[in-house]
Amino acid sequence: MNIVKLLQPARIEFGVDSLKLLPNDRLVQDASTILLVVAEPLLAVGEEIMKVISIQAKSVTLMPYIYPGEPTFALFDSLLKESRAINPDLVIGIGGGSVLDTAKLLAAMIENEQDYRDVVGVGRLLKRHRKLICVSTTSGTGSEVSPISILLDESTSTKNGIVSEALLADAAYIDPSLSVGLPPRITAETAVDALCHCIEAYTNINSHVAVDTYALKGISLIASQLRKAYDDGTDLDARSALALGSMYGGLCLGPVNTHGVHCLSYGLGGKYKVTHGLANAVLLPAVLEFILPVSAQRLADVALAMGVDAQETLEATARAGIQYIRELSAYCGIPATLTELGISSGDLSGLADIAMGVTRLLKNSPRPISHADAVGIYNSIL
Amino acid sequence: MNIVKLLQPARIEFGVDSLKLLPNDRLVQDASTILLVVAEPLLAVGEEIMKVISIQAKSVTLMPYIYPGEPTFALFDSLLKESRAINPDLVIGIGGGSVLDTAKLLAAMIENEQDYRDVVGVGRLLKRHRKLICVSTTSGTGSEVSPISILLDESTSTKNGIVSEALLADAAYIDPSLSVGLPPRITAETAVDALCHCIEAYTNINSHVAVDTYALKGISLIASQLRKAYDDGTDLDARSALALGSMYGGLCLGPVNTHGVHCLSYGLGGKYKVTHGLANAVLLPAVLEFILPVSAQRLADVALAMGVDAQETLEATARAGIQYIRELSAYCGIPATLTELGISSGDLSGLADIAMGVTRLLKNSPRPISHADAVGIYNSIL
Repeated sequence: MNIVKLLQPARIEFGVDSLKLLPNDRLVQDASTILLVVAEPLLAVGEEIMKVISIQAKSVTLMPYIYPGEPTFALFDSLLKESRAINPDLVIGIGGGSVLDTAKLLAAMIENEQDYRDVVGVGRLLKRHRKLICVSTTSGTGSEVSPISILLDESTSTKNGIVSEALLADAAYIDPSLSVGLPPRITAETAVDALCHCIEAYTNINSHVAVDTYALKGISLIASQLRKAYDDGTDLDARSALALGSMYGGLCLGPVNTHGVHCLSYGLGGKYKVTHGLANAVLLPAVLEFILPVSAQRLADVALAMGVDAQETLEATARAGIQYIRELSAYCGIPATLTELGISSGDLSGLADIAMGVTRLLKNSPRPISHADAVGIYNSIL
Repeated sequence: MNIVKLLQPARIEFGVDSLKLLPNDRLVQDASTILLVVAEPLLAVGEEIMKVISIQAKSVTLMPYIYPGEPTFALFDSLLKESRAINPDLVIGIGGGSVLDTAKLLAAMIENEQDYRDVVGVGRLLKRHRKLICVSTTSGTGSEVSPISILLDESTSTKNGIVSEALLADAAYIDPSLSVGLPPRITAETAVDALCHCIEAYTNINSHVAVDTYALKGISLIASQLRKAYDDGTDLDARSALALGSMYGGLCLGPVNTHGVHCLSYGLGGKYKVTHGLANAVLLPAVLEFILPVSAQRLADVALAMGVDAQETLEATARAGIQYIRELSAYCGIPATLTELGISSGDLSGLADIAMGVTRLLKNSPRPISHADAVGIYNSIL
């Protein structure tokens, strides 16, 4: 077996109502100044936590995160200035991917000689001096357990990935009850994003037995429970399965990461403001069709993990798996075409230009993706 | 899903030759005084590392660990005095379970207001102020990734478990090539110990979906690869599988832990100096027979994970699994009876007395174990 670097928060508190443990967390007990970065829909939860913690005679500041889409350089710049004025020894992020990505990077940059524009890339951010807790409220990005933050450079409409061990939280709280209020469509889009993390890691050129374990279990959990969570958002067993599947997806990101789907979705998110989960969900079947000629065995494994019956050939099983994903997305109201996202044929070459720039992910594809290939993939689902 | 606390080193470097990354590890780079605690058979490896690190103008002390059996209070006391005189900011343990348990606790106690006798139990050790890297050289205890150290109280011949997040290494190195020199019998005993961790977690009263993932994969890896590693110690694929399976076993220990097998083996190790892996290996089939009436479904899952064919009933599948374990142990020359370990019928009541004191594990059994039950289990394999 090749060398692999497994990264995750040293402590993960998983389960319904695990958030109730937060006020007594040793990291909270040991902190004197705490910054809570809280997603807008969770402000009531954040205020409740603030109330409980404040009784313990700590200085607690709540920073509402009320910005649409992914965090931009300008937004991060402004939040960093605010955070430095507060100067917390513990940052707690409560929200989905954008909020957690921001909280992680704030904790790393509050006290840091590096500039945040200089740490874009893999392993360039060297240290974090402030403690960090991530509380996930959606089941999709896996940001709560991953060493990655994404910032949007608004001047070029490109996403910038910062990948560093220093972005790993000291503790992650994954409380599936926090996702109960999530609308069905968002539930589905974020879950299919997590499914992408698992499938792209499993079919990755850098796939590894130790990460396959997470990927296959995540695929199985999400494929078997998404319909239930979509139909009934209060089904805590289904919510728990998605949360665990999403966590496994997040654990795939550090050591192996994604490839074609996430790469080709960069432009959709950056330039056309399509939400991250939706962009990936629409692209997933098309990218899997593209890699099928070189990844039949792995895609057949994916199909079986989703509960699809084995067919006469590996290729047929793999195809049945891709079809299963199409039907799952359709069941949850996720569009099948780029046209439905407002993209037209004239946009495809520009989208492919952006994708070609995401070399960090492009190089992970089991089948090399050229500019023409990228246009072809977009075109297949126009 | 219930709440579960998943604990593991934030970074695990896994794979053949991963140890070569150690000298450039950021933890090593940032340290000025380093203590290497090294198992006797690995002294050459330790000296090589010392040579490389010393070039980087650091103060490095090599402490050879040359003591048979599990670390005693007296031994730990003496090593702690030595370590405090060295006053390292980074402790690196290189060895099997005893060495790593010692290195972990040394790192925690070098600077600590608590006395090490006062931290025995769960969650009583509050902090560790020195950095810690664990390098495992056997595939069994999983100590490199667990939050547990065991000390032997020589005055009472009892084992003392110290369980605390503060015992989690900052980084673990799992390099399967380090286990190549391990004799076949030790390879087998340690691997079956790891198999126990996985099976006892999966059949545990506190089992959890998130930990079942590790347990089933560990069971599958060990059951399918142990014969190969036993037959040919240089088979790096088989060694890697055992190392990964052992890691998964270690990941089961923090959140769920073991039950009957490890509980009943306490006296064998403490009083009769039977090595830990051997004691567990001999007990495993007998304890599984005992829980079969209440754990048929789970034991059937274990059997299937080991590659055993499904039988007509769950009970039959479970029994076939237990038989598979007996045959695996026999293949590897592991004795099937306590008599072969030097135990006679007059010893059983005393062994059961000791087991009844291990309430930390006893309470995890899916079927309650009384003193008479314990004697009965011992007697069934006398």
